[in-house]
Amino acid sequence: MTGSDITSNPFTDNLRVVLVAPRNPLNIGAAARAMTNFGFRHLRLVNPYDVAYREARSAVHAQEILRNTQEFKTLEEAIADCTLVVGTTSLGHRELQHPLRAIEYGGRLIRKHLGSAPAALLFGSEKFGLSNDDLSYCHWLLRIGTSGSMNLGQAVAVCLYELIRKATASKPEKRKPASSADLDRLTARLTEVLRQSGYVHSDGTEAKIRRLVRRLDLPAHDAEVWLGMLRQIQWKVTHGGR
Amino acid sequence: MTGSDITSNPFTDNLRVVLVAPRNPLNIGAAARAMTNFGFRHLRLVNPYDVAYREARSAVHAQEILRNTQEFKTLEEAIADCTLVVGTTSLGHRELQHPLRAIEYGGRLIRKHLGSAPAALLFGSEKFGLSNDDLSYCHWLLRIGTSGSMNLGQAVAVCLYELIRKATASKPEKRKPASSADLDRLTARLTEVLRQSGYVHSDGTEAKIRRLVRRLDLPAHDAEVWLGMLRQIQWKVTHGGR
Repeated sequence: MTGSDITSNPFTDNLRVVLVAPRNPLNIGAAARAMTNFGFRHLRLVNPYDVAYREARSAVHAQEILRNTQEFKTLEEAIADCTLVVGTTSLGHRELQHPLRAIEYGGRLIRKHLGSAPAALLFGSEKFGLSNDDLSYCHWLLRIGTSGSMNLGQAVAVCLYELIRKATASKPEKRKPASSADLDRLTARLTEVLRQSGYVHSDGTEAKIRRLVRRLDLPAHDAEVWLGMLRQIQWKVTHGGR
Repeated sequence: MTGSDITSNPFTDNLRVVLVAPRNPLNIGAAARAMTNFGFRHLRLVNPYDVAYREARSAVHAQEILRNTQEFKTLEEAIADCTLVVGTTSLGHRELQHPLRAIEYGGRLIRKHLGSAPAALLFGSEKFGLSNDDLSYCHWLLRIGTSGSMNLGQAVAVCLYELIRKATASKPEKRKPASSADLDRLTARLTEVLRQSGYVHSDGTEAKIRRLVRRLDLPAHDAEVWLGMLRQIQWKVTHGGR
């Protein structure tokens, strides 16, 4: 970010608004506009429809945010630097494999996190919302307590409003949480070990393991320790008989 | 309102959302959709552009609210039954002839009023906002604390969200945490596996592992899953070479 006229603020700087497969340029523009309104600046798009993105960039408002928007092929890359990943849903979700938090309470947790480390807030496509695979990258889900599904731009506006609503009220967390990339490394290694041990059979298991690891709420330092343990166990599983 | 499937509620029933001279059918539709999302039902339009209104009525969402929308030639008629009239602005207003209240505080005043009597919340046209003449009907103004002007549909969503927002932000989690006995079983099993793998050497390590497991903040159900994984891995570590 160069030449920004928005005052830098570690709290707002730490949020990444991630739109997964957005289809409608008006919605991308609306999300960017809400971000400008509430002082956030990092918009990330995962696999947007090309036309939508190009149209949104040429919209009147929120030009700066859109010029600085980052595009990613996969969600995994888009959230790699984030130590908290929260999916949004306006519905009670189909299968409750994740903790589901009301926006008031969840917003407080996110605010607290933003005081010290990057967090991602994910919004699914207008038509399908977040997929089960997308959700498996989330630590938990934020439920906007509404009846019926919300318009994407409005959902973004309401969530961001909640985040800045009482920005001064919360205290930063002390311990540094594990990044999404750390958790991915852990998930991959664990899946391998489990496969070698005969625990993993079906293909859906990696997403299950990813959710399981996400729910651990690991500090960064502990993630290293667990990874070291798994490496040693894997060595034994591979060479153990000798 | 007949045949409504929204549960009647004096609080939400008392609010009239009034759009003054809206131009864009998408915004009328977005306002109606936000109202549906947050449980409000009385939408009133003052002097809307005819085409905009007709297009909005044929939009996919919020059909019922739009079918029941009332149209007025003047603002005066649109708010005749209201005992509190509040104008919205996302800007510090040009001439401060009205008390200007931040949305959190103003929202509380409106909520209080809605408990017993009808109130109107006014939104100006996309291009010009509320005119000085419109403002002269207001008891006070609600300022959404943003930088730059907000999109109409998003402004409606944020204001309505503030009105229904639960004041109590904290809600305990429902998930059942793992018991200390669960965690001890997990710690013991993990220590064994690590010993067999050659990771654990000194005697102080079990206490380290116990703390590590404690920091995971495990739900009871997940503790079972992890224990199952460890059992399988241990089986492989013990018998794997053969």
